[in-house]
Amino acid sequence: MSAIDHFWAVVPAGGAGTRLWPLSRSGAPKFLHDLTGTGRSLLQGTWDRLAPLAEDRFLVVTGRAHRAAVLEQLPDADPDQVLAEPSPRDSMAAIGLAAALLERADPEAVMGSFAADHVIPDADAFAEVLRVAVEVARDDWLVTLGIEPTFPSPAFGYIRLGEPLAGRPGAHAVETFVEKPSVRTATDYLATGRYRWNAGMFVVRPTVLLDLLGRWHPEFAAALRRVAADPAALEAGLAQEWEGLPKIALDHAVAEPAADAGRVACVPASFGWDDVGDFDSLATLLDGHHGGDGRDGEEQGSGAARTTVLGAERLVRAIDSSGLVVPAGGRVVAVVGLEDVVVVDTPDALLVTTRARAQDVKRVVADLKESGGEGLT
Amino acid sequence: MSAIDHFWAVVPAGGAGTRLWPLSRSGAPKFLHDLTGTGRSLLQGTWDRLAPLAEDRFLVVTGRAHRAAVLEQLPDADPDQVLAEPSPRDSMAAIGLAAALLERADPEAVMGSFAADHVIPDADAFAEVLRVAVEVARDDWLVTLGIEPTFPSPAFGYIRLGEPLAGRPGAHAVETFVEKPSVRTATDYLATGRYRWNAGMFVVRPTVLLDLLGRWHPEFAAALRRVAADPAALEAGLAQEWEGLPKIALDHAVAEPAADAGRVACVPASFGWDDVGDFDSLATLLDGHHGGDGRDGEEQGSGAARTTVLGAERLVRAIDSSGLVVPAGGRVVAVVGLEDVVVVDTPDALLVTTRARAQDVKRVVADLKESGGEGLT
Repeated sequence: MSAIDHFWAVVPAGGAGTRLWPLSRSGAPKFLHDLTGTGRSLLQGTWDRLAPLAEDRFLVVTGRAHRAAVLEQLPDADPDQVLAEPSPRDSMAAIGLAAALLERADPEAVMGSFAADHVIPDADAFAEVLRVAVEVARDDWLVTLGIEPTFPSPAFGYIRLGEPLAGRPGAHAVETFVEKPSVRTATDYLATGRYRWNAGMFVVRPTVLLDLLGRWHPEFAAALRRVAADPAALEAGLAQEWEGLPKIALDHAVAEPAADAGRVACVPASFGWDDVGDFDSLATLLDGHHGGDGRDGEEQGSGAARTTVLGAERLVRAIDSSGLVVPAGGRVVAVVGLEDVVVVDTPDALLVTTRARAQDVKRVVADLKESGGEGLT
Repeated sequence: MSAIDHFWAVVPAGGAGTRLWPLSRSGAPKFLHDLTGTGRSLLQGTWDRLAPLAEDRFLVVTGRAHRAAVLEQLPDADPDQVLAEPSPRDSMAAIGLAAALLERADPEAVMGSFAADHVIPDADAFAEVLRVAVEVARDDWLVTLGIEPTFPSPAFGYIRLGEPLAGRPGAHAVETFVEKPSVRTATDYLATGRYRWNAGMFVVRPTVLLDLLGRWHPEFAAALRRVAADPAALEAGLAQEWEGLPKIALDHAVAEPAADAGRVACVPASFGWDDVGDFDSLATLLDGHHGGDGRDGEEQGSGAARTTVLGAERLVRAIDSSGLVVPAGGRVVAVVGLEDVVVVDTPDALLVTTRARAQDVKRVVADLKESGGEGLT
């Protein structure tokens, strides 16, 4: 797999992953965890996918509290390549900071921004789509990768494709971004064949991104460029400007208005993608890719039922059960007679729920925060 | 509450309580645990119930491995009062050993044998029934306390009452003991009003017990009397005789044939009694007696649903759930969206099941023993 000239990988590493508590914590968020059972964290998996294409052209943007952990997990990264945000200010600030630095570092740069906590098992298919996206981006498009929906999910925003781009096979203009729909609306979207999931993967020339930002948020773009004006004094620049930056997602700040202005292209992608939003989707992900690894309880009655284990299978004793068990506390976990259960064992907290209730895990976190248990969140 | 003259409390403290794993272990069996949330173990509860009636006339018979723990839990017991069986040989040997020692120690003794791992919340009602039983036993009956059945349980043996004993109000002759019936048969039993649960509680003069044993198992009775012949040389006597004793329950060795021979009386008892056989019955027990202590998740949707906590309620976060949670591992336990669930958290092992499957917990223990996890059983 050959590198892509002047391609820079930008990896915003943030987000608490509240619905993956108690694995994911504010002190050790989702992207630092091996949720795929591969021995690599989601952050490391993102690095592994991008490094062959970007070589050393890498910028990770993370919170101050997590910079040391990120550097530890990415021993090949130069410390200068891991930027610490003074405080969380949403994706526009994080990605815009990277854009402002890259605009100065490499006038020919094309940056691709990919969240640190998503899973794309097929690196080759990803690379193929990315190569097309980078070429389109060199023509000053804001390019998004549009994931082919596999079911009418109400959990993602959607991209409505317009006409194919002339001279760029595989790429389309984007008509508009649409917010998370109902399942019924999403079903209608899928029937048209014109919609893709918005996975927040953008490929763009840094200057194009900042100039687009400047059309709708001129002071925001100017502040980012002031921060990056003297890379040797980055800390001082951040101290000066960061807290004044708007908290806004890149989608709202740039992508949506730019689509309306006809400046956004999409390269549809059919590779598998998962944002591992909760334990239900984690169970689906592990079942699909590691189905053979799931441990059946020796006395399991039903051949159809299966318990998927993320972690040491020797710790799990499952009888007549199905679902997901994460024995991350080092202790034996016995499950008897529960279908589609979710059991997540950690050294200081335990979660027992069902796949159907996986979204409600965030209520436990809220409850803990309210009642003095925030040390566990 | 006054003591009963010459009444000796005999407490066989054995039994693994496999269906209460991972709380109950071979190294720390059921009777050593506080399963009622009172701050006292089942053994201590048994002591508390009997001490006012027996004063210092107490014999506990337990396994060698547990003698130290028993002494630690019963600081008022004299070390001589806690006998260690060289190996488990079922209830006839354990209770027979006590009988043989008491026969020598106190010719007027009436012994009452009560398992260390049963729960009887109403000590006054128990004492009242026991006083009647002791008086009947002084007439050389083998007396059993017959628990009034509250439901047609298939888990217990039953006692069929015969005619009232002349001159002993409240006592009946026993026609026969019957084995654990089907629910249908048990329902028929209850309809007659003539059946009681056999809780294995026997009150008898030691000599009567040994003489009855001698009718059907003469060598067994003789061996027990040889062991006790020189109480100062008890260890030597045990070393000589113990391993040769039959492994048989007192019910089979003595009570059943004695009933057929017209030598058994029953004092029916209407106090609450529970052998805490599994987590389902534990949940029922705690719900009934400690219903107000159960923590409802703050966001619990259904008013009817409730999660009962045995242990520190502050550790449990239950949302839309019911069942039993035992946070004995010191960690936060969050349960979301599960009805009638059983979650038992300990420092080295975790159980997740349902009240309906509580009996199958023994399969986990069997599985662990088979596969090298016996250290956890």
